Amino acid sequence: MRIDGLQYANWSEKIFRQLREGGVDAIHVTVAYHENFRETVQNLEKWNRWFELFPDLIMKGRSTSDIDTARDTGRTVVFFGFQNPSPMEDDIGLIEILYDLGARFMQLTYNNQSLLATGCYEAEDTGITRMGRQVIKEMNRVGLVIDMSHSADRSTIEAADLSARPIAITHANPHEWAPALRNKCDPVIRAVTERGGMLGFSVYPHHLKDKSDCTLESFCTMIARTAEKYGTQHLGIGTDLCQDQPDSVVEWMRVGRWTKEIDYGEGSSANPGFPPMPKWFRDNRDFDKIEAGLLAVGMTPTEVAGIMGQNWYRFFADNFGPVQN
Amino acid sequence: MRIDGLQYANWSEKIFRQLREGGVDAIHVTVAYHENFRETVQNLEKWNRWFELFPDLIMKGRSTSDIDTARDTGRTVVFFGFQNPSPMEDDIGLIEILYDLGARFMQLTYNNQSLLATGCYEAEDTGITRMGRQVIKEMNRVGLVIDMSHSADRSTIEAADLSARPIAITHANPHEWAPALRNKCDPVIRAVTERGGMLGFSVYPHHLKDKSDCTLESFCTMIARTAEKYGTQHLGIGTDLCQDQPDSVVEWMRVGRWTKEIDYGEGSSANPGFPPMPKWFRDNRDFDKIEAGLLAVGMTPTEVAGIMGQNWYRFFADNFGPVQN
Repeated sequence: MRIDGLQYANWSEKIFRQLREGGVDAIHVTVAYHENFRETVQNLEKWNRWFELFPDLIMKGRSTSDIDTARDTGRTVVFFGFQNPSPMEDDIGLIEILYDLGARFMQLTYNNQSLLATGCYEAEDTGITRMGRQVIKEMNRVGLVIDMSHSADRSTIEAADLSARPIAITHANPHEWAPALRNKCDPVIRAVTERGGMLGFSVYPHHLKDKSDCTLESFCTMIARTAEKYGTQHLGIGTDLCQDQPDSVVEWMRVGRWTKEIDYGEGSSANPGFPPMPKWFRDNRDFDKIEAGLLAVGMTPTEVAGIMGQNWYRFFADNFGPVQN
Repeated sequence: MRIDGLQYANWSEKIFRQLREGGVDAIHVTVAYHENFRETVQNLEKWNRWFELFPDLIMKGRSTSDIDTARDTGRTVVFFGFQNPSPMEDDIGLIEILYDLGARFMQLTYNNQSLLATGCYEAEDTGITRMGRQVIKEMNRVGLVIDMSHSADRSTIEAADLSARPIAITHANPHEWAPALRNKCDPVIRAVTERGGMLGFSVYPHHLKDKSDCTLESFCTMIARTAEKYGTQHLGIGTDLCQDQPDSVVEWMRVGRWTKEIDYGEGSSANPGFPPMPKWFRDNRDFDKIEAGLLAVGMTPTEVAGIMGQNWYRFFADNFGPVQN
């Protein structure tokens, strides 16, 4: 089983076919960065159209039973998520509405301070806000997973503590391996995984040691070390693959509507665009290489199967939708 | 089994308890008259809150299996519908979005000309529009039922013809029994029922012979005659119960935002408000009386069971959601 914990591609039939070639059973896709509710709905409408046009390749995901169906019928399940709480605006009632429309993950922040928590680029991290506490409760109730990939440390640890259900960092790596601002330090990973949460390893070059030049062996050794430290069962893949996107999109991801000045985020004025992917992971056809790389650094087939998909599957089964009595 | 094909009450715990006292297993409720998409979502949020607050009385409906569950657990299932296509605005993609949020009925018009068809109060009926044809196809695809209760005759007959699936008139009576503008003439009822569609009998006084003074016997005799003419299996109840609503609501239903002048609709300047209900149907506790009345005019227990709920159940099973292969 292969599940990718985060992608934001410039979707096309080509990419949907590559998902099938790569044997990817399910993906969590970003459908909103800065979009408000109505704009998010327009993005969902686009997905509905793709589901209608390519029913043999992809299908909409609501629960893990959809992954079972997709595996039986040779398709990839698509679960929706938001990298910002912007789709819910200031309206807690929209959480259940968005869940009904298929949302299964929502980040409480995207780099900046939000109504709910502090993003990883702010100078001060004041933790979970008053509204954030209410939103965590409501997300727990409906079964929308809290994702803290782009949040600041204190906010993330507080979210893990306040949440009655495990939370996720869908796409990031350990800071001690690659000291990027977006990567996560030990207390953060510990807070998330000790409470049953998940960390998805990113192959986005800004999150890799040596960036685009990172070797597969270095990436896989880092995963094996992380597994020893926090337990294999809490780990998965969250590639952050942004395939076929023009550079204007990474600028929009960083800048949205919140600033009139350019913000380069993880890039720089010299390198403002999407960085080149590492040679060993160009697109969805390369999951084989990660799997082989994990085996090559000495992980057992059972451990590797967990990281490639089974751990996400179990996490989805437990955390999508209301708690089953 | 008891199913009501249309209600628009001023919802409260009191009414939810009356639904249970009346043994009502399922209702189709109006969640939009003139609301646009975002306003409709706010109404759905209110319903989600009621489902959360009164889980022992009501539950959200998506399919007939929810009616089975509700009957097993002593609750009333609530299916959503719109009396106007205003929630979909000018965006065909919103049809599937609204379906995902629980919508199961949508009227193509509410009294006036819409983007899709002609309403029953217009002087000229030009039938289904270009967009209306596209919308009918899309509603057929996702399994959102076309309701023509407030549409003009030609538009209704064309909708029945164009639709690949049966359509409904959820709340109206035969024009030959009570010649109200909203009641339906023979060719309209024939077009709908001959293609497997449904007519729900209304107890809204403006649709009754002698209005608020209509007798139960007259109402039930009319149903028996209609059954002889069109076939019992196409008939159900659609009370149009607007319980506990202030008169400001009936004015808003008629006027919305489309006119600056008062439009009295089925009322008049002398009687602008909600008319008093007939003595034999004050609220949801009175379905027993209709059932007894139908038996008293000589309908068989099987026929009566069909009209009180089983016919709607079968229609819902066939027409909610995509066609099952």
